[in-house]
Amino acid sequence: MATSSANVTRIMLAMEESTISGYPHASISSRGAFEWTIQKFVRSNVSSFELLILHVPHAQFYCKGRACVVLGFFSLCVIILFVFVTEVMVYSFDMFFSAGSEDIDKIYTSPECFQSMVFRGWERGVHLLEYFVTRCNQIGVACQAWIKLGDPKTVICREAKRIQPDLLVLGSRALSPAYLILDISVSEYCLKHAECPVVRIKRRADEAPSIPFYD
Amino acid sequence: MATSSANVTRIMLAMEESTISGYPHASISSRGAFEWTIQKFVRSNVSSFELLILHVPHAQFYCKGRACVVLGFFSLCVIILFVFVTEVMVYSFDMFFSAGSEDIDKIYTSPECFQSMVFRGWERGVHLLEYFVTRCNQIGVACQAWIKLGDPKTVICREAKRIQPDLLVLGSRALSPAYLILDISVSEYCLKHAECPVVRIKRRADEAPSIPFYD
Repeated sequence: MATSSANVTRIMLAMEESTISGYPHASISSRGAFEWTIQKFVRSNVSSFELLILHVPHAQFYCKGRACVVLGFFSLCVIILFVFVTEVMVYSFDMFFSAGSEDIDKIYTSPECFQSMVFRGWERGVHLLEYFVTRCNQIGVACQAWIKLGDPKTVICREAKRIQPDLLVLGSRALSPAYLILDISVSEYCLKHAECPVVRIKRRADEAPSIPFYD
Repeated sequence: MATSSANVTRIMLAMEESTISGYPHASISSRGAFEWTIQKFVRSNVSSFELLILHVPHAQFYCKGRACVVLGFFSLCVIILFVFVTEVMVYSFDMFFSAGSEDIDKIYTSPECFQSMVFRGWERGVHLLEYFVTRCNQIGVACQAWIKLGDPKTVICREAKRIQPDLLVLGSRALSPAYLILDISVSEYCLKHAECPVVRIKRRADEAPSIPFYD
């Protein structure tokens, strides 16, 4: 990642894919966090900010399936098995995609960067970044976007430590504790462990889908 | 509190008095949170922001006294008694000062507002606000400052709910868990309970006094 001017406020955003419509769409809470940052802080002062946009691909099967949600509520054994299987699959997922992917660790700063990307299944994560990079270019604010593989919450904290942004902005589904049993909240983890100021932007109630776990 | 333009980003800051030098000085972490807000967000775009500065007087005896800190570490019984006595004294403190104080609920927006204040022991909390209001006026950013009595963490959350700022900024001593046994962190509580985005600005390690509990 290129070194930025110390005179610019560097805001890091971690974007998730939509669990409703999938790639290349970003989750409702990710889009909310992005718009909040633009509207509340960047405003018209675009030359004083730089947005650092990270996407950590999330194993899709982790969130899909109403059956998993229902079963998870009533069986501790299923939860333990679920978490175990998920961790194994996330690991496999990482191994599969990390083999020879030129798109990882590449820094995207303008819509033109996406024209040279390698096309395959992996491209969808890149397309998610393309949406935000294009938005930043339209607004006129500088940005850098990149993809990292691994467990989202630990990767976000590791990247925040490496990059040392002035602020880390995270979208949140604002799930009730009952749902959190099934998922370790990424934003909750980052609030505790990230070595920079963190702000969590909760999804508006009127934006939440009928199954709150989806985003 | 006067209604502000919806086109302005409203940042609420909760300021504590210094536990080292007392009133009218603000704590190290409060001053850090204020400067962070000015340097990282307001920047030169002063017309787009409004700072809402709240001070909730804290019972001084709660933090003073090395003996309390040391004893507290080694005796669970002392901790329980300490917390109980503190709550009673905070309550008495509120009752004492809330009787006929014209400075409470008054909104301070410029250095001139402080010229008409009522002089008594209570004035010191107002002088703490005066420092920040004067700084805001020097910078050119709009501000409103006020005092509320009660338990700081619950008052801050209640005021945030009432005012609905775009962001609540809180300074934090960044205490280790060992110290947190003796004190329920205000910022920790607000992160969980405030109904608006919250960011906690941790005190820099090189600013921390030899007794980290002090601020």
